[in-house]
Amino acid sequence: MSSRPAPFVRPSTAAIAAALAALSARFGNKVVTSQAVREQHANTATWLTNEPPDAVVFVASTEDVQAVVRICAEHRVPVVAFGTGSSLEGQVNAPFGGVSIDLSEMKEVVAVHAEDLDCVVQPGVTRKQLNDYLRDQGLFFPLDPGADASLGGMVATRCSGTNAVRYGTMKDNVLALKVVLPDGEVMNTARRAKKSSAGYDLTRLFVGSEGTLGIITEVTLKLHGIPEAISGGVCPFPTVEAACNATIMTIQSGLPVARIELLDEIQVKASNAYSKLTLPESPCLFVEFHGTAAGVAEQSERFGEIATEFGGGPFEWATKAEDRTRLWQARHDGFWAGCALRPGTKAISTDVCVPISRLAECLTETQRDIAATGVTAPVLGHVGDGNFHLTLLVDLTDPEEIARAKAFSGRLVERALAMEGTCTGEHGVGQGKIKYLKAEHGEAAIGAMWAIKQAFDPHGIMNPGKILPLC
Amino acid sequence: MSSRPAPFVRPSTAAIAAALAALSARFGNKVVTSQAVREQHANTATWLTNEPPDAVVFVASTEDVQAVVRICAEHRVPVVAFGTGSSLEGQVNAPFGGVSIDLSEMKEVVAVHAEDLDCVVQPGVTRKQLNDYLRDQGLFFPLDPGADASLGGMVATRCSGTNAVRYGTMKDNVLALKVVLPDGEVMNTARRAKKSSAGYDLTRLFVGSEGTLGIITEVTLKLHGIPEAISGGVCPFPTVEAACNATIMTIQSGLPVARIELLDEIQVKASNAYSKLTLPESPCLFVEFHGTAAGVAEQSERFGEIATEFGGGPFEWATKAEDRTRLWQARHDGFWAGCALRPGTKAISTDVCVPISRLAECLTETQRDIAATGVTAPVLGHVGDGNFHLTLLVDLTDPEEIARAKAFSGRLVERALAMEGTCTGEHGVGQGKIKYLKAEHGEAAIGAMWAIKQAFDPHGIMNPGKILPLC
Repeated sequence: MSSRPAPFVRPSTAAIAAALAALSARFGNKVVTSQAVREQHANTATWLTNEPPDAVVFVASTEDVQAVVRICAEHRVPVVAFGTGSSLEGQVNAPFGGVSIDLSEMKEVVAVHAEDLDCVVQPGVTRKQLNDYLRDQGLFFPLDPGADASLGGMVATRCSGTNAVRYGTMKDNVLALKVVLPDGEVMNTARRAKKSSAGYDLTRLFVGSEGTLGIITEVTLKLHGIPEAISGGVCPFPTVEAACNATIMTIQSGLPVARIELLDEIQVKASNAYSKLTLPESPCLFVEFHGTAAGVAEQSERFGEIATEFGGGPFEWATKAEDRTRLWQARHDGFWAGCALRPGTKAISTDVCVPISRLAECLTETQRDIAATGVTAPVLGHVGDGNFHLTLLVDLTDPEEIARAKAFSGRLVERALAMEGTCTGEHGVGQGKIKYLKAEHGEAAIGAMWAIKQAFDPHGIMNPGKILPLC
Repeated sequence: MSSRPAPFVRPSTAAIAAALAALSARFGNKVVTSQAVREQHANTATWLTNEPPDAVVFVASTEDVQAVVRICAEHRVPVVAFGTGSSLEGQVNAPFGGVSIDLSEMKEVVAVHAEDLDCVVQPGVTRKQLNDYLRDQGLFFPLDPGADASLGGMVATRCSGTNAVRYGTMKDNVLALKVVLPDGEVMNTARRAKKSSAGYDLTRLFVGSEGTLGIITEVTLKLHGIPEAISGGVCPFPTVEAACNATIMTIQSGLPVARIELLDEIQVKASNAYSKLTLPESPCLFVEFHGTAAGVAEQSERFGEIATEFGGGPFEWATKAEDRTRLWQARHDGFWAGCALRPGTKAISTDVCVPISRLAECLTETQRDIAATGVTAPVLGHVGDGNFHLTLLVDLTDPEEIARAKAFSGRLVERALAMEGTCTGEHGVGQGKIKYLKAEHGEAAIGAMWAIKQAFDPHGIMNPGKILPLC
């Protein structure tokens, strides 16, 4: 398969003007063209340049999204979906201009089916909003990217977070989607049944498609019962390698760990300072178990034994909610703690993922590279799945340092790919990772992705310039 | 999206002859055209008519598959993948003739990565072969369709089995695939990392695609540690409804049940007779828990309490392997036990799946319909996921009975669809379920599936006449 489109082009000024006129006629003051709002909607949270859309339209319904897409399709004007703007690889940038569809006002929890452990939400509902809504029913949605992201955006980037080792990623937690296709038609990707073999998996095709195939306007999610008991704690290790080996043994033993997060020595120091903790200044695993009171106690003890085997410990665990909350708040603030290590710099979050058997090697080599390159880059890892982030702190006023950091970041991805890993475990491709996609997937897979893209979006109006590498 | 192809056509005799000549030149006596072998490769295991291919080619490698596909593509001759022939909806039939690619000799376990809990296998490896291979390493692959199916076929139909309630379906247990595309190119769908957000999910696109987009020649599967302890047993209930309600409560309580299978009264009678059991002749749940010794004991006791709440019980459970083996062998023989209720008839397995909250209603209405229609149809259900099968026993010499059974089967699917369910939980679409696909998914989704099909297979040579409804 070797289908490749003509390169995307920015629409003519006349086409943009015609589309905006039609949008204004339909949406009135919901169409915003102020510089500040346009720039805010192209927020990249990385070192990518801000590339604002020509306008932002605030929508309230699937019908609204259909209307925007139809108008943009008619004038061949790009459409970029926007939730909370917390994506990390330039997913909401508009390199070819066009219209940003702001879905943040579509924030209704449409239905909760407690017996079926599922719910239906609009795409602008955020993960915290959903969990606040669900708490009284004893249910929760486990996926937790660092930001309070919108669920539509979480679907679109195939995100995960600290609980993925137990509960899976978005691909495992979406039952069905309603999407507006590039011609304005509405499609339901599946039904609410827990499993089905009825045809191509359109749901999974849209999970991780980053707005390049259509706009998600409704999400049916799997839910989970809030565990009866939760135990958790911190376990120090002499080295990152020892912590990785303890993680492998934990997973291999079938211990149903809900979270197992690595902080390296630098990150621990940063978190101690930022979150006022007193952790021993060595690599640590933050660990959590979900289950019955007896179950989590048994699992915590076993984990403690495994840690000891690898020279780690003591594993101090508790089932009290306040202790856990403080710990996981510190984990979620890890990025900000990292940032505070070097005030005035920009923090770039890397995101490789490797088979867990290669994790210790990948991390050790990376730490050697950090030292040799002279960058500041604390490690935060979802190590149960072989996924880790560096918070790479870069002085954006120093071109030499930027070049050094970019070269380091490239070597990190190459290292992961050489170990059968991926350039992105959970942040997505956006603009930032496009350059690695061919090396990761090979020509044939990129051809297949292009074939799908062209089949769905022949005019290339859906979030052009994202995911797919041009030849 | 409204793309629709021209209807498939059977290739000309000259095209077939040219393809067979080229295949014979390349493969010699691995090309078989005897009537018996051709018919065996179009085995449908249902009431569908046997539609044999023009030839069968026994392949031994990805390169062999590439060669067959290239020759067939050149002559526009259909290609049908064949594993063990245990599919249930006519997936291996060749309604437009062409070449059956027999992958059963590709049965090498290529690699087991114990630390990563994954393995790489050729598509002809069967599930039992794999589990025999893995046992010494303390690992297993949990998915268990009734037959000892090939793993390639299990991927292609997105199958599941009795363990899916805990371990998921094939979509959840495949990490990556190697496939031969319709032009003969080889594509890897993903890498071995446990999670990735790097582009469209080509893996999940091929899971459940039934050979209509390409031929799977290598499968990377997730594995699981053999549980330290397993407990299981049988629990009788006064009614099917009570058993369903106990199942809902079990799932809602977060009890990590590994298997929870419903047998209705008729099926229990059939299994008692066939497998020499002495179960009470009322609806029963077969239940199993996997975990630590303390964990499975705790879970079994809790399940017993739940059963009592709904008027069921006693739940007699044991952790002894021999007791469990006998029980699950009987469960796996349930289909044959059903068949024995009416010797000389053909057994057709139905396969609807509904949200679990609707399961009791769906089953109760179906049992009423069974009685009103006068068919013999014992129930076997993977009820933890809302999926159940009837073994519909039909006298194929009686046209009136066939008509009655087909009408009943249609009503069953309509009932499931009306309850937000699916026409197939795990058997796939093949030829048998095509007629329900539009009602299940709607025009837009069918259009999207066609667009994907045409993007991958513009000449329609890959398993034509399967999955996709013609307008």
